[in-house]
Amino acid sequence: MEFKSKGFNKIGIVGLGLIGGSLGLDLQKLGFQVFGLVHRETTLKRAKERQLAQVVDTDPQILSDCSLIILASPLPEIIAPSKELLNCINPNSVVTDVGSVKAPVIKVWEKLHSKFVGSHPMAGTSASGVEAGQSELFKNCPWVATPTKGTDQEALEVVHHLAVSLGSKWVIADAKAHDKAVALISHMPVIVSAALLNMTKEIGLQGHDLELARILSSSGYKDTTRVGGGNPSLGVNMACNNTESILEAINSYQLSLERLKSIIKTKEWEELQTELTQAKVIRSEFFKS
Amino acid sequence: MEFKSKGFNKIGIVGLGLIGGSLGLDLQKLGFQVFGLVHRETTLKRAKERQLAQVVDTDPQILSDCSLIILASPLPEIIAPSKELLNCINPNSVVTDVGSVKAPVIKVWEKLHSKFVGSHPMAGTSASGVEAGQSELFKNCPWVATPTKGTDQEALEVVHHLAVSLGSKWVIADAKAHDKAVALISHMPVIVSAALLNMTKEIGLQGHDLELARILSSSGYKDTTRVGGGNPSLGVNMACNNTESILEAINSYQLSLERLKSIIKTKEWEELQTELTQAKVIRSEFFKS
Repeated sequence: MEFKSKGFNKIGIVGLGLIGGSLGLDLQKLGFQVFGLVHRETTLKRAKERQLAQVVDTDPQILSDCSLIILASPLPEIIAPSKELLNCINPNSVVTDVGSVKAPVIKVWEKLHSKFVGSHPMAGTSASGVEAGQSELFKNCPWVATPTKGTDQEALEVVHHLAVSLGSKWVIADAKAHDKAVALISHMPVIVSAALLNMTKEIGLQGHDLELARILSSSGYKDTTRVGGGNPSLGVNMACNNTESILEAINSYQLSLERLKSIIKTKEWEELQTELTQAKVIRSEFFKS
Repeated sequence: MEFKSKGFNKIGIVGLGLIGGSLGLDLQKLGFQVFGLVHRETTLKRAKERQLAQVVDTDPQILSDCSLIILASPLPEIIAPSKELLNCINPNSVVTDVGSVKAPVIKVWEKLHSKFVGSHPMAGTSASGVEAGQSELFKNCPWVATPTKGTDQEALEVVHHLAVSLGSKWVIADAKAHDKAVALISHMPVIVSAALLNMTKEIGLQGHDLELARILSSSGYKDTTRVGGGNPSLGVNMACNNTESILEAINSYQLSLERLKSIIKTKEWEELQTELTQAKVIRSEFFKS
């Protein structure tokens, strides 16, 4: 562990939910001393029972001695850190976050802390909360860092080593490009799929006709609606933190859909064949093994 | 086999692809004499080798003695039957089809044959052609029949027994309600999902940014784009045969999407929570076990 040998043996984690708790479990196994900051006494109790960190406390003071601090609380809290928390962060500590949107986080934190590095480990399950943390969550997942011109290079190296130690694949990206990519591949599927579910209300499908649709529905409908029928709060969080990129993406999506509609309307079947072939090619490029 | 005892022991199948071939295999096992009509000599050879029917021929004359005839060719052919075929169908034979859209089929066939019953076994794999037929394809799948006021009740009973003999769940529906339901749960997922794939062109995603999106894409994008990245010809067939219902469905979908967009634009996060909760409820009602 290169960065451990440089004195990075104490790591603080703010928030012990799915990501924070999983980090705690893995980092302890790697031999680090982990300090977990939580909000509530009930979370504290369960985090201790689950041994998500060696030290768990509701007092940010536990972070003051940490050479690396990972912000793993919900995005709204990452973006609006409390004064108490900020007061406990040593100016020499490297700070990173794990938020799923990067530009708004960087905007806030680059001003607050000179050794801040924005990052986003692309790991996750549908679980959340103090019970959700699990070992080896980050193995083989992309860990995207979004350094800017102002990013401290040594701090970036520390986060790099962190990601690699956890088995993640290191990816460097521009923060805005990251947020746009995430809007396309992670947030748009939720919107597109939720709109498909909600259109049953829009067309007034009910009674026998709704029952018929239910009887006839199969794997195509099931797969296409999966993420739209997921946790509503996660959907709201994502929309509220990546609003601009999502709205841009919806505009593009609407054009793409309108194009298919107009081809069907004018019965240009050869053109439809071309469009659907393009879709097939795009997907196979995404998921070539 | 109730309908076998009534003399329904010879069954003709027009087309020995996925559905026709699977019917042939199962019906022979049930003790029926199966006559398979195919177009091409090469198909004839393989259908014989695979024993999809006892008699396989390219001459529709083989159907003249069948008391039940199942139209299992592609939809465009079902809708525009050849004179040669029609001349070989005995007026006393019960005729049914397995097309995935019902109103256009009924419109044509009710005029052509007094003992016609429209039906749609909701079974399928992504395979097609003479190699695709497999045993027990229809087991536990819904088999929708769409009788009209003019439908011969005895003919309907024959198709009912056919479906039940193959292990299918019998469902009676209005043809237009069927086509609308199928547009919603089977055709819209393809459109919605293809538009999501094609929007990468619309937003001009390329080079590094496209590569980033590919690296970051995970199960949500994969599932939501699955049917849109499928066989383009199937998508064209479906659009060309169920055009009206699909266009109506796209209009409703556009309203549903516009609603989500406008909520995100005006940052009404509580309203978004309500919409996404509704989506979750709709899906859980569809797939309650």
